[in-house]
Amino acid sequence: MLDREIDCWVATSDPLIGAPHLVPLSFDWDGASVLLSTSAASPTGRALAARGGVRLGFGRTRDVVMVDGDIEVIEAADLPGDEGDRFAARTGFDPRSLRSRYLYFRVRPTRVQAWREENELAARDVMRGGVWLEG
Amino acid sequence: MLDREIDCWVATSDPLIGAPHLVPLSFDWDGASVLLSTSAASPTGRALAARGGVRLGFGRTRDVVMVDGDIEVIEAADLPGDEGDRFAARTGFDPRSLRSRYLYFRVRPTRVQAWREENELAARDVMRGGVWLEG
Repeated sequence: MLDREIDCWVATSDPLIGAPHLVPLSFDWDGASVLLSTSAASPTGRALAARGGVRLGFGRTRDVVMVDGDIEVIEAADLPGDEGDRFAARTGFDPRSLRSRYLYFRVRPTRVQAWREENELAARDVMRGGVWLEG
Repeated sequence: MLDREIDCWVATSDPLIGAPHLVPLSFDWDGASVLLSTSAASPTGRALAARGGVRLGFGRTRDVVMVDGDIEVIEAADLPGDEGDRFAARTGFDPRSLRSRYLYFRVRPTRVQAWREENELAARDVMRGGVWLEG
């Protein structure tokens, strides 16, 4: 799923008032972390920069993966060039080419759930505490 | 979009610690509000019951509608029977048939955004302040 999809849903909470926010963003997955980028001025950019937590949704709603993770904030100029190139190739979107300030965010999964039903309780942990569980 | 889709992404914030949560849930749309249901004990059920805000995402990530709305909490026994029947027919899921406590949540849109790009800033308001804007 993480190798196949290009976009994911990114849920954050407003760092001041706690209101939920949700947007679709392109991502790159390198096998260990999810790389995102958005404007530093956007609601999602501000929430991620405040490192108030993030939850990602991948896939169609009846065959999905959800990821909770820790957030690393990376200035565009500080991202290794090959990672920026890979992100641009994968997503068709190169934040380094923009005049306005974009940030990269690396999300390291701490919990991963797989899900095939509408019933929230049917979610199955495939990672907990940063450790992949056996299927 | 709201007539066509069966499931949506539901983003909430934990009422105590503000952490973002995100799950897919089935919904019904009656032309004015989105009807959801989940277990009262689930993270999403607790957040919605606390009426701490909700943001819904519909569709594939490059052709999506996002809805912010006000939340009405409805005990399963208090939902009009025809609405419960319609929800069950639409979603294939009838919370009234379950032993554990499920709640219905009616989300009345206050803001609706349409979106076709990965760039968060390209979102277009189609409703603001509860008022549909002209296309």
